[in-house]
Amino acid sequence: MADMRIVPFRPDPSQYAWTFGGAAPVMRIAPGSVLEVWTEDCFAGQVRSVNDLPSAVLTGPGLNPQTGPFYVEGAEPGDTLAVHFVSIEPSRSWAASSTVPLFGALTSTNLTRTLQDPLPERVWIWELDAVGRTCRFSALDGDFTVDLPMDPMHGTVGVAPAGFEVLSALTPAAHGGNMDTPEMRAATTCYLGVNVEGAMFSLGDGHARQGEGETCGVAVECAMDTVVIVDVIKGRATPWPRLENDDYVMSTGSARPLEDAFRIAQVDLVEWIAADHGLSKLDAYQLVTQAVESPLANVCDTNYTSVAKIRKQWLPPRRGPLADVHLRMRQIGADYLKRTGAS
Amino acid sequence: MADMRIVPFRPDPSQYAWTFGGAAPVMRIAPGSVLEVWTEDCFAGQVRSVNDLPSAVLTGPGLNPQTGPFYVEGAEPGDTLAVHFVSIEPSRSWAASSTVPLFGALTSTNLTRTLQDPLPERVWIWELDAVGRTCRFSALDGDFTVDLPMDPMHGTVGVAPAGFEVLSALTPAAHGGNMDTPEMRAATTCYLGVNVEGAMFSLGDGHARQGEGETCGVAVECAMDTVVIVDVIKGRATPWPRLENDDYVMSTGSARPLEDAFRIAQVDLVEWIAADHGLSKLDAYQLVTQAVESPLANVCDTNYTSVAKIRKQWLPPRRGPLADVHLRMRQIGADYLKRTGAS
Amino acid sequence: MADMRIVPFRPDPSQYAWTFGGAAPVMRIAPGSVLEVWTEDCFAGQVRSVNDLPSAVLTGPGLNPQTGPFYVEGAEPGDTLAVHFVSIEPSRSWAASSTVPLFGALTSTNLTRTLQDPLPERVWIWELDAVGRTCRFSALDGDFTVDLPMDPMHGTVGVAPAGFEVLSALTPAAHGGNMDTPEMRAATTCYLGVNVEGAMFSLGDGHARQGEGETCGVAVECAMDTVVIVDVIKGRATPWPRLENDDYVMSTGSARPLEDAFRIAQVDLVEWIAADHGLSKLDAYQLVTQAVESPLANVCDTNYTSVAKIRKQWLPPRRGPLADVHLRMRQIGADYLKRTGAS
Amino acid sequence: MADMRIVPFRPDPSQYAWTFGGAAPVMRIAPGSVLEVWTEDCFAGQVRSVNDLPSAVLTGPGLNPQTGPFYVEGAEPGDTLAVHFVSIEPSRSWAASSTVPLFGALTSTNLTRTLQDPLPERVWIWELDAVGRTCRFSALDGDFTVDLPMDPMHGTVGVAPAGFEVLSALTPAAHGGNMDTPEMRAATTCYLGVNVEGAMFSLGDGHARQGEGETCGVAVECAMDTVVIVDVIKGRATPWPRLENDDYVMSTGSARPLEDAFRIAQVDLVEWIAADHGLSKLDAYQLVTQAVESPLANVCDTNYTSVAKIRKQWLPPRRGPLADVHLRMRQIGADYLKRTGAS
Repeated sequence: MADMRIVPFRPDPSQYAWTFGGAAPVMRIAPGSVLEVWTEDCFAGQVRSVNDLPSAVLTGPGLNPQTGPFYVEGAEPGDTLAVHFVSIEPSRSWAASSTVPLFGALTSTNLTRTLQDPLPERVWIWELDAVGRTCRFSALDGDFTVDLPMDPMHGTVGVAPAGFEVLSALTPAAHGGNMDTPEMRAATTCYLGVNVEGAMFSLGDGHARQGEGETCGVAVECAMDTVVIVDVIKGRATPWPRLENDDYVMSTGSARPLEDAFRIAQVDLVEWIAADHGLSKLDAYQLVTQAVESPLANVCDTNYTSVAKIRKQWLPPRRGPLADVHLRMRQIGADYLKRTGAS
Repeated sequence: MADMRIVPFRPDPSQYAWTFGGAAPVMRIAPGSVLEVWTEDCFAGQVRSVNDLPSAVLTGPGLNPQTGPFYVEGAEPGDTLAVHFVSIEPSRSWAASSTVPLFGALTSTNLTRTLQDPLPERVWIWELDAVGRTCRFSALDGDFTVDLPMDPMHGTVGVAPAGFEVLSALTPAAHGGNMDTPEMRAATTCYLGVNVEGAMFSLGDGHARQGEGETCGVAVECAMDTVVIVDVIKGRATPWPRLENDDYVMSTGSARPLEDAFRIAQVDLVEWIAADHGLSKLDAYQLVTQAVESPLANVCDTNYTSVAKIRKQWLPPRRGPLADVHLRMRQIGADYLKRTGAS
Repeated sequence: MADMRIVPFRPDPSQYAWTFGGAAPVMRIAPGSVLEVWTEDCFAGQVRSVNDLPSAVLTGPGLNPQTGPFYVEGAEPGDTLAVHFVSIEPSRSWAASSTVPLFGALTSTNLTRTLQDPLPERVWIWELDAVGRTCRFSALDGDFTVDLPMDPMHGTVGVAPAGFEVLSALTPAAHGGNMDTPEMRAATTCYLGVNVEGAMFSLGDGHARQGEGETCGVAVECAMDTVVIVDVIKGRATPWPRLENDDYVMSTGSARPLEDAFRIAQVDLVEWIAADHGLSKLDAYQLVTQAVESPLANVCDTNYTSVAKIRKQWLPPRRGPLADVHLRMRQIGADYLKRTGAS
Repeated sequence: MADMRIVPFRPDPSQYAWTFGGAAPVMRIAPGSVLEVWTEDCFAGQVRSVNDLPSAVLTGPGLNPQTGPFYVEGAEPGDTLAVHFVSIEPSRSWAASSTVPLFGALTSTNLTRTLQDPLPERVWIWELDAVGRTCRFSALDGDFTVDLPMDPMHGTVGVAPAGFEVLSALTPAAHGGNMDTPEMRAATTCYLGVNVEGAMFSLGDGHARQGEGETCGVAVECAMDTVVIVDVIKGRATPWPRLENDDYVMSTGSARPLEDAFRIAQVDLVEWIAADHGLSKLDAYQLVTQAVESPLANVCDTNYTSVAKIRKQWLPPRRGPLADVHLRMRQIGADYLKRTGAS
């Protein structure tokens, strides 16, 4: 712990990245570094009241401003970047959500086009209670309120894409990006395939909570104070983002139509289990079929994201380069929290 | 309780129905009846060992033999059939699963056609422990075994479709049918819109458990001893199957592509909450977005099925004709179990 | 020609069928019969002016009333029904089209659900000129008119489905049905797989013309006087409806999403060419890739329909049971037209 | 004609661009310039015989090497780039096609993943006859050959995308790119919305011909000698690529699932006609429904592309900034051809 490299970084608005790939690194970090970062909300902080309609107030060049990218020393194509979330804490006492004209799952969009009129644009401000760990919904029409559990997460976590591509921070794909899965919470490790020298890791789009599918297209959006440990697994490729927590291993797929996202995640989980846990491909297919949980992440972004997760206790022991990565990073995270008095 | 109408029914193989709609009723029952039924497994009991390849041993006219249909007296188009599952218990000590050539999510199929060869056909026999409440997986290649929790459910629950249609017992749609959702377990009430006189309710396709999506197309398939209470809510229409348990209300959607199934379930949940819980449509849209769980049911059948569920504790009180239906049927089920000594 | 069996049939409204499968035959016919039939339009003739909004005037049990079904003697499961269209002529001097709330490709629907309001419901009446062979469009807003070429066709052509199913006359699938392809015009032969004794052939939903995709969901709908020859090819299975005219062979696929319909039609064409024209599967794949035309039929019905067509002149000679079927039926049709003075 | 600016450009292999966006311009050109360019084939010329399997011989950083990008002076976001194809001529006497493992419409892919084995990888070499205007197919299995009409086109035509994105030259989207439509032939004008200063126009991926849908994923691929006129329409936005030839106006849509590509193209055509030809939106919807042709372009790329086309003779006269653009560029093209003796 004496040698824990702690790297604080809070971007100036001029430093935000709006894409995965294509942005110059804000900093070089060594593998194993503990990043203490702040991320702005998806609206770049410009939606602050129920009167701040996104279509009127947004002035920036995009959505989902990214903190990063970080150039991770030694990361090369064919490696895996392991990103362990130590803590994710809302940095304001409120969060914003809204409908956005022609965006979201229950409206026609610029990709699923119809000739109909868009839905009305409305903004909801949610009150966050960091002590009680709740998010308060207040109805716009009527006076109903309800407190939902706070469950902070990052919508966007990713690296530079392969093939020279530069993708909007609204897009999830094989590089990660805007996957919008509630599984990206504290105590989780995310494995990302490295496509370029330095990996070029960034994150943003914090949510105090969201439902599965992010139905209206906008979660409980808030700025975050986040601590992540970033490490490199040399010589291990990762085809699609994978996650691991104390109980589960998970694969993700991002594509359209949604069944393609489902297929990617499920095939990846089957192949991962076959490769690292020593089952035949067909035995893994059978076991996954009966044991998998398949929570949707988003059904509103430019690609849809599906997650396939299975309890580690139901698998043969894991072998190979990822065998103890999560456990090790989890321990470093616990040490960090003990040291900083956060828990 | 003195007047509890208990109706036992165990079909002879010649009595199975293979469709929703189109089959003559096996029996007329009064609303409020408690049905004690037995259902055969999806293979009509013909796959009994790892050597019984479905393509070789199946001789029947279809899959998913149905117990029913039951003509429910007084049920008319525009009403809702409320089906409460009191108990669902495997009736054998084993269950079967398999790959099926050109069926399942991770293979091309007769609807998602390619020029590739099919996957190998294999059968797994699962051991069921009714006392320990487990299902034991045994790998075909190697000697790995693992016990998964038993979580019995029915894959097919439905009524005759609208518009004179007769649909295969492999198809889920607005009439219910082969939804294959793990949510269809004991202590759950399923609401189905009535399309024809008598509703023509049937059920089958028991699973000792399944993962979300039923990835390979076949769950842990077993015969079941099941108790359901069937009642009629007059003058209340139900557009798509809805479920309710002690904690959740749920909507289902069945369609292709999968995002259409998702949209159906989510719109239905938004509209149901708006109608019965007194939120505006847009407030319900926002609340569902942040609170919904969206477990996939199947991504392998002729339509895919998505479920949208929300905790009742987070909603304003329910009003209208469904306000206390689940609670009332749940109590009758508890009385039944106490009386029969089953719990 | 002396032995040409000519069978006239004009249904009484009480005789319409509204499904494929499930309806009693209106008549038994011998293979080789020439059917002279009349078919009502998709609205059952109830939309007759721009003021007849479908949602207000339709009183029947469905849409697409079918003329039939005809029990074709000797047709058994595993055979192919060959249906040759000799002539298709509008039987009125006008036709109707409309928008229909929540139906069509450029609106949300009951399967692709959103929370948006539907488009306005409007009716267009088209003037048909049987001599000039034109259909006149008259704008509702403004006074623009234009004459488009008349190109009469049947939207629905099919047999009873397999597996005991009964499908709405709005649904296209492997049994044919509501494919809505402009290729179903005079001088074309349609091959349909027989699923039940007697095949149970019916047709309806005449269009004076339609664009590819039937974008708004409703073509230039009109009653038709149609002559078809119906024959049976014994012992020849047909997996999906196929068409043939003097220049092309064609396969159809009907499914969702649309790429699945595309895949079905293209795989079927590749496999058909490989089987009957003596190319290897991969050579057929390559040739189809460079030579195929892929006109969309409908992108609005409960399944979408895609057609794959290739010029016969570019293929090796056809062998097998279909080798001369079209040519033979075409000749009988020409004889009929000469005899009746229709051409 | 005296002032026709003719700009020849033949890239050195080191100058190829592999993306839309992100590449430095190879040249600045003035609006109205006539570009005489050479484009390499999709394989960068590395597949030259039936033994050159792509998976073995390809050494480059991607597929579809682009000639360009060209910085067009004066082009700014919100303008339209008009690209008129004067001529497209194969520059070699042969062309190549192939199957590619896990690429194409009739196989599982890295986005539509299954657990099946890929199809075999095979290469076909097509002989091109520039005088007879034919492409000769030679079967690999057996000795069948057939001559198909030559119909040269460019698969990729596009500009830099919006939102700072850089997209693979394999991707079609709103910026154009790898649309793979046979409509992109000589005597056609393509309208592209400008997203960045200078537009950054490039082209490549010549096909001696292809079927609709490019079923196996690879057309009759060849290097091209192409002449295009590039001009700028100031202050006119174009949401999705549009095409025009002497007879038709056309809109394109590129998305997944395929029905979304269809919807984009059809909505765009309806809105274009409403805006420039003076019909109400609903009248345009009706007219398009009955008059549209909807040829598929590709159903194999990262997005699928659908085209919606309508005969200009059936529309009210066009008004506005595009009224005579095609006619004017067509005339310049004719002048060029007369001057160079090419026709």
